[in-house]
Amino acid sequence: MTIKYIQGGVTSPKGFTSSGIHCGIKKNKNKKDLALIISEKECNAAAVYTKNQVKGAPLLVTKDHLKNNTAKAIIINSGNANTCTGDTGLANARKMCEFVANSLNYNTEDVIVASTGVIGVQLDIDKIKDSIPTLVGSLSENGYLASTEAIMTTDTFEKTLALELELSGKKVTIGAMAKGSGMIHPNMATMLSFITTDINISPTLLDKALKASVNISYNRISVDGDTSTNDMVTILANGLAENNLIDEENEDYLLFLEALKTITISLAKMIAKDGEGATKLIECTVLNAKSEEEGELLSKSVISSSLVKAAIFGSDANWGRILCALGYSGIDFDPLKVDLTFGSSVGDIKVCENGSPLNFSEEIAKNILLEKEIQILVDMKAGSNTVTCWGCDLTYDYVKINGDYRS
Amino acid sequence: MTIKYIQGGVTSPKGFTSSGIHCGIKKNKNKKDLALIISEKECNAAAVYTKNQVKGAPLLVTKDHLKNNTAKAIIINSGNANTCTGDTGLANARKMCEFVANSLNYNTEDVIVASTGVIGVQLDIDKIKDSIPTLVGSLSENGYLASTEAIMTTDTFEKTLALELELSGKKVTIGAMAKGSGMIHPNMATMLSFITTDINISPTLLDKALKASVNISYNRISVDGDTSTNDMVTILANGLAENNLIDEENEDYLLFLEALKTITISLAKMIAKDGEGATKLIECTVLNAKSEEEGELLSKSVISSSLVKAAIFGSDANWGRILCALGYSGIDFDPLKVDLTFGSSVGDIKVCENGSPLNFSEEIAKNILLEKEIQILVDMKAGSNTVTCWGCDLTYDYVKINGDYRS
Repeated sequence: MTIKYIQGGVTSPKGFTSSGIHCGIKKNKNKKDLALIISEKECNAAAVYTKNQVKGAPLLVTKDHLKNNTAKAIIINSGNANTCTGDTGLANARKMCEFVANSLNYNTEDVIVASTGVIGVQLDIDKIKDSIPTLVGSLSENGYLASTEAIMTTDTFEKTLALELELSGKKVTIGAMAKGSGMIHPNMATMLSFITTDINISPTLLDKALKASVNISYNRISVDGDTSTNDMVTILANGLAENNLIDEENEDYLLFLEALKTITISLAKMIAKDGEGATKLIECTVLNAKSEEEGELLSKSVISSSLVKAAIFGSDANWGRILCALGYSGIDFDPLKVDLTFGSSVGDIKVCENGSPLNFSEEIAKNILLEKEIQILVDMKAGSNTVTCWGCDLTYDYVKINGDYRS
Repeated sequence: MTIKYIQGGVTSPKGFTSSGIHCGIKKNKNKKDLALIISEKECNAAAVYTKNQVKGAPLLVTKDHLKNNTAKAIIINSGNANTCTGDTGLANARKMCEFVANSLNYNTEDVIVASTGVIGVQLDIDKIKDSIPTLVGSLSENGYLASTEAIMTTDTFEKTLALELELSGKKVTIGAMAKGSGMIHPNMATMLSFITTDINISPTLLDKALKASVNISYNRISVDGDTSTNDMVTILANGLAENNLIDEENEDYLLFLEALKTITISLAKMIAKDGEGATKLIECTVLNAKSEEEGELLSKSVISSSLVKAAIFGSDANWGRILCALGYSGIDFDPLKVDLTFGSSVGDIKVCENGSPLNFSEEIAKNILLEKEIQILVDMKAGSNTVTCWGCDLTYDYVKINGDYRS
């Protein structure tokens, strides 16, 4: 049984509808800024939140509403992060849930909320209130694209995916949408992802699978090293696929986990590729690390290095910067064992062996690095663990997007 | 008794001469690339090295030669870091010391060595060998500027300072030079600093004073978060000032320590201000932190944030990014206690109180942030420790300098 991508998104699993509209938080009327996803049936739900000490008001409310591990709807706005907004902000995040609950006759605790955009500015809650009838009225089985658009900020393309798998003879579907690092007025980059599925699974295992997937996908990307106050990944599972309930870590669980990892890694790569101002996706695979933890720290150090990112922007095979970034990762290792290889769709080239320079053709290296997806292969020869992380290059446009004065 | 800045540098203390010449490692003949500092009398010596696991060959040789805590000369080249160069590189670093020792009739172990520039490329050691007579021949009591120039890479101005103080009725002088983040062909940024002094002090206390100074100066700056493989700070003390030997932590020691901190903080600020592509110095002071360690982590997180750095480049009072950077510093704190103030020579403005937005004039804030030296004041209200760190803005030119292809 295989995992198969299909066209779609959060409305692909049975029983989910969604919508996305412009309510006026963003000034540009052509930009959607309010999204709603609902399930006709109560869902088991799980979420992962930013590790930033400063958390947006929507995260606090969502955390509270997910105490019972169930939900039926998610409301999301872009254009304002509702963060650093004190008690008023907290009240507004709760109101967003209430509006939806009142309109659909749900319990307020069954609605969760997320926001992305400028921080330190109060939300114009009336605009959201007034738009609820339109938002609910436009809920549709084909709404996945509209809701994906409504959570975008500086994203340059929609991030929506869906896939199918078969469990105990039943078709199970997973849909997901995400937004990457962007900002409205020059402001906070935020990573949001919402996953829906009709799988029948216990809350405990849903939570476990989500955490395992996030750890090797969204937690292995970096755009600029800044962890947002509003990052959130949620999953809702309504059970309508009617597969045998997964309540132990059996084969069905493992297949679901594989599917969830597949879709979250794909979305994470899309986010990295669409990093602010980015022109290239950087994929750094650390081979033969002593442990998975060490491999991850080493790989993250490489994809987060401003000097490495700038070199890749310039298609410069400046491998010394990679060795340097490995060196300050905090991991103890022998530099005289490390091999480095650059690769892309046009080929690959080894540039460093046992920590020493190889005589390589800079012309070939440049041709490889001129491509849009760059692989950096680091062989540590210290163990047997392989870890991949993703990032993007550092460009003039990153500075432009984040350095322009807000007016 | 006061500490007084004087014009000068590494040749200001008694008994020190230095030189700086072009030997051919840099292609541009107008750029000096080889420096020598010597003391007529054996010096107590101490050094602090990069924490990067990958260390340049010169660092390994210097560490070896300083085992006995004495030295008489330092040879430094720019244009090539002699790092990731294997056994050949190690042999070349030793040869640089030998050349100087043979020419001056010193012990090889009394010569230490530093390099900065491109990594992963073997040094053209013959060019250095052939230039030793000229290098030694041009040693001068006024050589401080020539040697300062010879260690520069993309630095845009010379970093040389000297100051005097009086200890037990004797005039004691400290001289120093430094280079900041730069590269030759797009390559490794390195921080180097060489300090000379005629103070009479025990090796143990010299080492202790150096470490204490480095911890609150060079270790509190960041240009791009990339820790070089070749960072090194050394101090040579020849005792010619004939002050009473400092071999305990008495008042003389404390005064010397204060002077050393003064000169290293000034140089560190010069390095931060002259960061690659930088247009502004950012000074972040964390007030009322629970501990000095926490204050340092919080302050470093702010000055290292790409989003904060880009906002300052754009003179944008985007304080949410500062709160966000504090939030991911790893420190546990209450965001609802934090006050934030921006300041510069034209005034200051409080933008956030108790984690919530203040109604401030964006026009006044912009005027403050248009200045070249920006203060960010963070009041944590969690204790009584104050820590300041320094960084620079993130600009188009940083990307340009580090992203251009090497040819």
